[in-house]
Amino acid sequence: MLQYENIAWYEDGVVRILDRRVYPVEVTKVECRTHGEVAQAIKDMVTQSAGPYVAASMGMALAAYECRGRSEAEQLEFLEKASYTISHARPTTTWRMERITTSCLEVAKKVFAAGGDDASEAIREFSIEQNNTRYAGIGKVGKHLAALFPDHGAVMTQCFAETIVGQMLKEARLQGKDIRLYCPETRPFFQGSRLTATVCHDMGFDVTVITDNMPAAVMKNEGIDLFTSAADVICVDGHVVNKVGTYQIAIAARYHGIPYYVSGTPDKGHPTVDTVKIEMRNASDVLMAMGHPTANQEVKGYYPAFDITPPELVTGVVTDRGVYSADRLNEYDTGDGEFLV
Amino acid sequence: MLQYENIAWYEDGVVRILDRRVYPVEVTKVECRTHGEVAQAIKDMVTQSAGPYVAASMGMALAAYECRGRSEAEQLEFLEKASYTISHARPTTTWRMERITTSCLEVAKKVFAAGGDDASEAIREFSIEQNNTRYAGIGKVGKHLAALFPDHGAVMTQCFAETIVGQMLKEARLQGKDIRLYCPETRPFFQGSRLTATVCHDMGFDVTVITDNMPAAVMKNEGIDLFTSAADVICVDGHVVNKVGTYQIAIAARYHGIPYYVSGTPDKGHPTVDTVKIEMRNASDVLMAMGHPTANQEVKGYYPAFDITPPELVTGVVTDRGVYSADRLNEYDTGDGEFLV
Repeated sequence: MLQYENIAWYEDGVVRILDRRVYPVEVTKVECRTHGEVAQAIKDMVTQSAGPYVAASMGMALAAYECRGRSEAEQLEFLEKASYTISHARPTTTWRMERITTSCLEVAKKVFAAGGDDASEAIREFSIEQNNTRYAGIGKVGKHLAALFPDHGAVMTQCFAETIVGQMLKEARLQGKDIRLYCPETRPFFQGSRLTATVCHDMGFDVTVITDNMPAAVMKNEGIDLFTSAADVICVDGHVVNKVGTYQIAIAARYHGIPYYVSGTPDKGHPTVDTVKIEMRNASDVLMAMGHPTANQEVKGYYPAFDITPPELVTGVVTDRGVYSADRLNEYDTGDGEFLV
Repeated sequence: MLQYENIAWYEDGVVRILDRRVYPVEVTKVECRTHGEVAQAIKDMVTQSAGPYVAASMGMALAAYECRGRSEAEQLEFLEKASYTISHARPTTTWRMERITTSCLEVAKKVFAAGGDDASEAIREFSIEQNNTRYAGIGKVGKHLAALFPDHGAVMTQCFAETIVGQMLKEARLQGKDIRLYCPETRPFFQGSRLTATVCHDMGFDVTVITDNMPAAVMKNEGIDLFTSAADVICVDGHVVNKVGTYQIAIAARYHGIPYYVSGTPDKGHPTVDTVKIEMRNASDVLMAMGHPTANQEVKGYYPAFDITPPELVTGVVTDRGVYSADRLNEYDTGDGEFLV
């Protein structure tokens, strides 16, 4: 199972980020020596899913290293700009990213108030603490999610969510659930086949990769008991923003009477779906597969990174505090300082 | 637009089949010097969609060439075996393929009755005539289908159907329909991005390729007016057997209130869906894209070539004789000697 230390890690003026664009065929890390390079790596999808949340705080530690020794005012200005740059690398998850980077700013202020002039180590410590808290919270999500699984059966996933997939499978094993997994490949970047399936396989589960046109056929032919995904944004009104394809699998699940559970916590920053901006990525990416052209390059492509699943298609939202109905997420209290993804 | 002469052609002891596995990046032909090689090429998906119907009769011409000059009884035995081999190359379309190959047998019998000892040219003539009839019939299908399009709007396709896509677009132009096309790429072989999109582009239409996880999102965001596909089998009870993915797009279309029209004619050989055998292809194909691995090769794959869309999701079946409700296909009279695909 991937741990956050492997996803992104700050040390001695460098953030090293696992390159998910080539994993698991190659296991390489992209080295970022400025926080701008960290933001660019997030934009380029060197890391994605929950990866940017780790990279964000580690990137803020790097930003603090970059401006160390300057006056307090100069450092704060530098770090505020860094917070903006990193949290706005991609548009859809800005609110959650900003919660992380502005928390790092608060850490820096405490360092300066205590007479320090280099906040990098303190921010790194904060990042570790925050990620440990996040993983512990996601452990609770995994426990509630695995409890919904049948004792013997099949679960369909969508895209990559290293933390939640890992925790959910760990809990499934603890609870004695005998689960087969079906992972749609998740074009155009194959996160499902490259990443989700690898995590499931590494954890010793029976995993089958399917192409993205097969979920409905698999539901009909192979007896899927439950569909689950994480989310990039869960709006308080119950709309789920997740990797493109989630919406159509949720529609197919509803047609087959299969429950769809999304894991994560509501974003107080998005009371309704109207505030969410769906990122449009480079259309030419859909005309390629594993770096090879799949179409006449004169035709057009279309690449929304995410789609929106309405609350009517969501059976339940599995949080650290239990399962909520998608139309009653306002009852969830986020508490303080928790960053669940 | 692809013509049958380019899809498969018999001449002087060789059937040359356009290799759709690499088209349009490469335009090459596979040369078959025995009917067994023709059957293998069909099995290997050198040609697919309606391509095997052309290859079948051209392959029978080649079989006749192979056994020319032998006694009538020996030739008939050879041709009967060839008819079986070619028509059973893939299991799902056997009934339709057998109609073609056994018709070629009848042509050979006439040649022998008239004192001839080489039926190859007569079968080739029959193949040409039959394909001309088929194309004319499909022209009528295209006319009825294009009439269902809005004057200005967007149409979603699924997989490759060179004949019907070409005829439908020719008719759309004649009828002054201003149509944008959205083509899902159709994994694992990318027939949608490589073939359908290329035909649409070559015919001068505005075409956008999307990945197979996007149809529902595109329906919601881009205003699709109509979803259409051909079919490998249309059962008389209204079940539609077509490239895997069709079923899930039909479900998404229904959810969005978008009509789904399938083009073709009912297969009298399949009064109900119970007689259809869905071909399972090599599971490892779904762990590759354009020849490159997309997953840990220790995980499993799953590859049903086709899925089944129930009549309740089909708005209408567009035949050469007009549009039929999927639950009233028994009213369609196939007539004699027509092979519409």
